[in-house]
Amino acid sequence: MKMIIAIVQDQDANRLSQTLVKNKIQATKLSTTGGFLRSGNTTFMIGTEDEKVDSVLEIVKNSCKSRQQLVAPVSPMGGNADSYVPYPVEVEVGGATVFVLPIEQFHHF
Amino acid sequence: MKMIIAIVQDQDANRLSQTLVKNKIQATKLSTTGGFLRSGNTTFMIGTEDEKVDSVLEIVKNSCKSRQQLVAPVSPMGGNADSYVPYPVEVEVGGATVFVLPIEQFHHF
Amino acid sequence: MKMIIAIVQDQDANRLSQTLVKNKIQATKLSTTGGFLRSGNTTFMIGTEDEKVDSVLEIVKNSCKSRQQLVAPVSPMGGNADSYVPYPVEVEVGGATVFVLPIEQFHHF
Ligand code: NI
Ligand code: NI
Ligand code: NI
Repeated sequence: MKMIIAIVQDQDANRLSQTLVKNKIQATKLSTTGGFLRSGNTTFMIGTEDEKVDSVLEIVKNSCKSRQQLVAPVSPMGGNADSYVPYPVEVEVGGATVFVLPIEQFHHF
Repeated sequence: MKMIIAIVQDQDANRLSQTLVKNKIQATKLSTTGGFLRSGNTTFMIGTEDEKVDSVLEIVKNSCKSRQQLVAPVSPMGGNADSYVPYPVEVEVGGATVFVLPIEQFHHF
Repeated sequence: MKMIIAIVQDQDANRLSQTLVKNKIQATKLSTTGGFLRSGNTTFMIGTEDEKVDSVLEIVKNSCKSRQQLVAPVSPMGGNADSYVPYPVEVEVGGATVFVLPIEQFHHF
């Protein structure tokens, strides 16, 4: 058994949850906050058999990997008109930090 | 030292907390949500000496193990009268998922 | 890689966060509650290279270590006048419980 700890952006947490459920992989979710990124994130704890580690990592990667996204311009309501960008811009969203830890015992009571 | 991570149903968390305190076992609690079960659960992180692992597992088992419970019928107020069951039914409650992880260093500052 | 799990008093969490950011050490924070201490605490999960473990431990120690603090007397408003102490008293504040766990794999997607 291994414990997979995956820290993902909040916006990707739902997609990851649903994909895990669809694949019958049990996960426990924690609401967490990051150090550099001020924004909230979600941490998944997944206990899994050794031979399924790679497929869980693949699921996390596909649901959460860092990517560019076009963001629509926001009108500068009450904001700084100088910094207003009147066209969509690409920003990096998503990304996951994943740790695989050894487990010595696993029990279900 | 080992780290015991026990994920238990919210309804059993208080009983487990109290039994741990009574046995002078220090635990840190996290509010978590499950994957399959939509309901909330509580995760206990317990750092413990190797020779106490078994007794902590026994405490978790006794406080949280899966069991049948009689649930009183709920009147079908605004609900589906077709699915109304007018007598108590047995449902499975409780249960715990427990991981024991190795620890390389332990410090108290 | 190692996973450092540090459970610290809420009052020290901000100082620890800021020192970690200043040292470019990425951390994920969880809001937790203790077993003995009723009060809230904050748990930091820090994934770090083996050769940086000691310096992260030093940072946690310096930000959080248990110490005496003078607490101003609180007027016994609606309280128990018998137990009122009319001068500052020293109380122990802070302290951290820290675990270092082995990591088998680390990924950033
Ligand atoms: Ni294994
Ligand atoms: Ni040990
Ligand atoms: Ni390593």
